[in-house]
Amino acid sequence: MIQVSMKDIVEAYALIQPYIMKTPLIYSKPTSDRTGSEVWFKMDNLQSIGAYKIRGAMNNMMSLRGEEVKKGVVAASAGNHSQAVAYGARLRGTSAVVCVPESTPMNKREGALKYGAELVVYGPNYEEAEKKAYEIARETGRKFIHAYESPETIAGQGTVAIECLLEKGDFDAILVPTGGGGLLCGVAIAAKAMNPEIKVYGLQTNTSAPWLKSFHEKRLDNSCPFLPTCADGLEGAITWPNVELALTCVDDIFVVDERTTREGIQWMASKHHFMIEGASATCLGALFEEHEELKGKKVLCLITGGNIDLDKFCNICEETYE
Amino acid sequence: MIQVSMKDIVEAYALIQPYIMKTPLIYSKPTSDRTGSEVWFKMDNLQSIGAYKIRGAMNNMMSLRGEEVKKGVVAASAGNHSQAVAYGARLRGTSAVVCVPESTPMNKREGALKYGAELVVYGPNYEEAEKKAYEIARETGRKFIHAYESPETIAGQGTVAIECLLEKGDFDAILVPTGGGGLLCGVAIAAKAMNPEIKVYGLQTNTSAPWLKSFHEKRLDNSCPFLPTCADGLEGAITWPNVELALTCVDDIFVVDERTTREGIQWMASKHHFMIEGASATCLGALFEEHEELKGKKVLCLITGGNIDLDKFCNICEETYE
Repeated sequence: MIQVSMKDIVEAYALIQPYIMKTPLIYSKPTSDRTGSEVWFKMDNLQSIGAYKIRGAMNNMMSLRGEEVKKGVVAASAGNHSQAVAYGARLRGTSAVVCVPESTPMNKREGALKYGAELVVYGPNYEEAEKKAYEIARETGRKFIHAYESPETIAGQGTVAIECLLEKGDFDAILVPTGGGGLLCGVAIAAKAMNPEIKVYGLQTNTSAPWLKSFHEKRLDNSCPFLPTCADGLEGAITWPNVELALTCVDDIFVVDERTTREGIQWMASKHHFMIEGASATCLGALFEEHEELKGKKVLCLITGGNIDLDKFCNICEETYE
Repeated sequence: MIQVSMKDIVEAYALIQPYIMKTPLIYSKPTSDRTGSEVWFKMDNLQSIGAYKIRGAMNNMMSLRGEEVKKGVVAASAGNHSQAVAYGARLRGTSAVVCVPESTPMNKREGALKYGAELVVYGPNYEEAEKKAYEIARETGRKFIHAYESPETIAGQGTVAIECLLEKGDFDAILVPTGGGGLLCGVAIAAKAMNPEIKVYGLQTNTSAPWLKSFHEKRLDNSCPFLPTCADGLEGAITWPNVELALTCVDDIFVVDERTTREGIQWMASKHHFMIEGASATCLGALFEEHEELKGKKVLCLITGGNIDLDKFCNICEETYE
């Protein structure tokens, strides 16, 4: 099993603190009024790369030793992780290669390039791009930085829970948008260490929900449908190590309707004037769907990122709900 | 002349600090790359009411003494000031009456109501609503809280400059979206006290620019045209006291094209995924228009608010520039 302790997360926080922003924790009156929960947002979309992923990436970078810094790193991702690694590598004074599949749109490719990473475009999907990245790691000695399985990544992502609970210690529940599960595990480990009573829930959309069956049946199951989704950051098949770890510390997985998630994007724009990406909006969706577990509770929503395409955002904001 | 000193602003900061957010100061690589300046954003749109106005309002509230707290306050404004006073009054444990003209749209009226203020709708324009507010002040003993002429308001707004310069002390220039001029004067007084070399520029749109002639000719002149503008927070005629004060501490007034201002809204949404109101976007507009004074300089942009209507925002984001 992947080994990550609260001590790892505490040490990660000390390492990465100079490089990350202590993002605002904001009370939402409109969302609280609507849902009957006391709702708070942790605005990690305000991190310099527009997403919390800088926490895990930076912890990996600061954990590199001597020779590793010289040889550099390699990562695979079509999303925020590649930007985070590229950005973190520059701050650490090392070099990064980022592998993306051919389907990756130009703006996501530019995300890595603008921080000076070398871009390798390879294969039809993430799995192939990841294989290529491992190959580059073997051939060049670069360290492979996994987006969610690396203990350093998980520990780094967990720092967001420390930051929130030191600011407000009495949350009943934390809602965690969940893709690979690095954030989910890191947050659960840190939160439970600070308050064993707190509930930690992973969120996926009904358009890509491999966590639901895998978690409930305690074995990897990627047989669910994978449909187009506004929460692109959460999309895709998962792997066993993070599920295994989550089973030790996470309370449950909630599946949020695609439509309620889109409504969450519009709600945040209309009520708070925040642009958030679909992954983050699953927190709003889960609250709108009135899960019994959240009623009357103090709920912390992790607003994980804001990297949403402007056209897509405006289309969603022009939709009609209710 | 209105009397506001650096000491007043320092004291205001101590008074209001428990009630305001220390908002993020963010470096913008895309804007710096485009403009050839080193551009930073102070995200005061993240204050709880979505605008910096809470600073001045809260300083007024915390400066109330004994009997004044019992009698309550009254304000006039169709914009962020009324929300700020309503919100601040609640925190102070006093009551507020807010006067708005009949033209005030429902969502702006709700802004004051949701924090428990009493709403008085009166007259065709701001001037009439203000007269009504003064009348209420006389009749009820409530203290009138002016949106930009009160020394407490100016001192409160100036705290944003202290906050920025304590975080990064070497700015060459500050861009200040300017309506009545309370923020402009407060920022200039604080910034010059911390660094006499720093330049402070007030920004208006070409659709409502009474500051330009008034400042340059050193006498009040509201004869400019007042046209529809996306920067509604800056719109309208001005008064002499703030101009008189600005002449002692402000370096210049820049007039920004309405079109470049709209482009600024779109730019922030596209590059940073921030929703900002038109007033704030004048900072981007001024940079895009390549003022000689800003070239190669370290420029602080005050992002004063994010309270923009979602329909209007999406319309602007769908426009084509260049």
